[in-house]
Amino acid sequence: MAVYTDVAAEELAAFLASYDIGELLSYKGIAEGVENSNFLLHTTAGSYFLTLYEKRVAVGDLPFFLGLMGHLAAHGIVCPQPVKTRDGTTLGVLAGRPAAIIDFLEGVWPRKPNVAHCAAVGQALAKLHLAGRDFPMTRANALSVKGWRPLFDQAASRADTVQHGLKAFLAAELDYLEARWPGDLPRGIIHADLFPDNVLFVGEHLSGLIDFYFACNDILAYDVAICLNAWCFEADHSFNVTKARAFLSAYGKERPLSEVEQAALPLLARGAALRFLLTRLVDFLNVPPGALVKPKDPLEYVRKLRFHQSVNDIAGYGVAHSGSPA
Amino acid sequence: MAVYTDVAAEELAAFLASYDIGELLSYKGIAEGVENSNFLLHTTAGSYFLTLYEKRVAVGDLPFFLGLMGHLAAHGIVCPQPVKTRDGTTLGVLAGRPAAIIDFLEGVWPRKPNVAHCAAVGQALAKLHLAGRDFPMTRANALSVKGWRPLFDQAASRADTVQHGLKAFLAAELDYLEARWPGDLPRGIIHADLFPDNVLFVGEHLSGLIDFYFACNDILAYDVAICLNAWCFEADHSFNVTKARAFLSAYGKERPLSEVEQAALPLLARGAALRFLLTRLVDFLNVPPGALVKPKDPLEYVRKLRFHQSVNDIAGYGVAHSGSPA
Repeated sequence: MAVYTDVAAEELAAFLASYDIGELLSYKGIAEGVENSNFLLHTTAGSYFLTLYEKRVAVGDLPFFLGLMGHLAAHGIVCPQPVKTRDGTTLGVLAGRPAAIIDFLEGVWPRKPNVAHCAAVGQALAKLHLAGRDFPMTRANALSVKGWRPLFDQAASRADTVQHGLKAFLAAELDYLEARWPGDLPRGIIHADLFPDNVLFVGEHLSGLIDFYFACNDILAYDVAICLNAWCFEADHSFNVTKARAFLSAYGKERPLSEVEQAALPLLARGAALRFLLTRLVDFLNVPPGALVKPKDPLEYVRKLRFHQSVNDIAGYGVAHSGSPA
Repeated sequence: MAVYTDVAAEELAAFLASYDIGELLSYKGIAEGVENSNFLLHTTAGSYFLTLYEKRVAVGDLPFFLGLMGHLAAHGIVCPQPVKTRDGTTLGVLAGRPAAIIDFLEGVWPRKPNVAHCAAVGQALAKLHLAGRDFPMTRANALSVKGWRPLFDQAASRADTVQHGLKAFLAAELDYLEARWPGDLPRGIIHADLFPDNVLFVGEHLSGLIDFYFACNDILAYDVAICLNAWCFEADHSFNVTKARAFLSAYGKERPLSEVEQAALPLLARGAALRFLLTRLVDFLNVPPGALVKPKDPLEYVRKLRFHQSVNDIAGYGVAHSGSPA
């Protein structure tokens, strides 16, 4: 929720001179994204996004992110495409930061996703997984199962100040998941953060997937599990099985989940819930006093995790095992 | 530098239905303005600004601000014009806040204003003063001479923690200005905050004056004095007499300053410097610890004020008295 770096108009105009996107008309710092500084540009050629990458993003990962967006866009995924300079590069330097110009996608993200939104996301996620298959670069997921214990260690001593018994709850879940995390499921490029604020719609039409800065190589069905957490719970944290069915069915039409993926889904959903619970908890415990940015509620994910603990198989998410009736 | 209120896409689409500006394509919270929540909208009809007025703006003043923007735009001033609903109103309610849709003006504000920018601003300010003459509504200036002592009282006890001797410096200046503040100068609508970030340019062309939320009725030459402070000092706080001459000459071609206005200018410039010194000082002393927004440096205005104290007459600003050679 903050622009960290201001950019002088004169500097920006000079930066844009190496692109073939017309003359600068205006630019506004955008109050979204806590990792980077984002600007919406208007030029005589149209609208663009300018991102300055701040220190929380590893510079070494930027070619992966920008390359992936370009690859996916070239393979029919509606996602922002990095604009190339006349020299063919996508990554430059502006105001002392690595910087890129990216196509601006029209669309708004649904604050109250409905069943149709969930179905659209399911289809889009499967297409993304398919389109990512021949992307040649790789990036490890720092926030998969091996990344959770270091987060737990950061938060453990103060976890019970957030909720009584939270430390023991987290410790037990972490032990459980570390012992059972699957090593044999299909892997590939995953978005890893496909929450509603990263999916744009114009009317009922999905107009774009955005924010690929957590994308990495990991279990494809883990991305499905993240979306179950992100899209299929109501504001009161109850699970909406109709939304889950719509999401999973639409996904399966593009890329059917195998038997082993289906069987693993409740476990993967527990892992996804734990991952967001842990990162939110660490953020929550480290908010500076007086900060304007309100941290997201970690306890939302305690409730989601408890739900997934109660699910025995994929039927709990509203769909039948493949080959058997619902 | 913050969006205070989020707006759901569904709510915004419903709000826009009463306007004749097409379908919503996208909206982004803008990281500028600390008083209000601002969004840049794209619709099928073009680009617009959406402002939600937060509590620091008095709701009773909004008809004045919106009416003034409409009046000035109708009188040839390039400024944002409030968009009317099909019912002819300009002020609605969205997300529980008073809200207005305003034309989006292209343009960027100059981080390093040059002489040509200063001349353009002088001409635009004079035209604004002329166009405001027949605007029927009035609003008192809460930040003119009568408003300074309450600000001083808020800051006095801690002023010396910012700079040794600052309290005594402020007290003496306030006494001096209160005793001599002119009551007989031409008055009218003033912008009262025409800093570089409120003047947009496309290339060398002034494309708009924005942010009328300090506009009020006051001494016209006081607005000139504010601009001398805002536009004619360098980053090292030295006074650039070439810029001042360009600004004042361009102003005078549209609306010549009278003999009494010219004579009062050094005093008015001291007052303008004290006004921004005091508001910045109060803000500086009241920043919550850990806040993301860095307060503006109040001491910049100590240096500007000292400069104006050294100016005896308008020749100190680079222009001759009317009727006499420079």
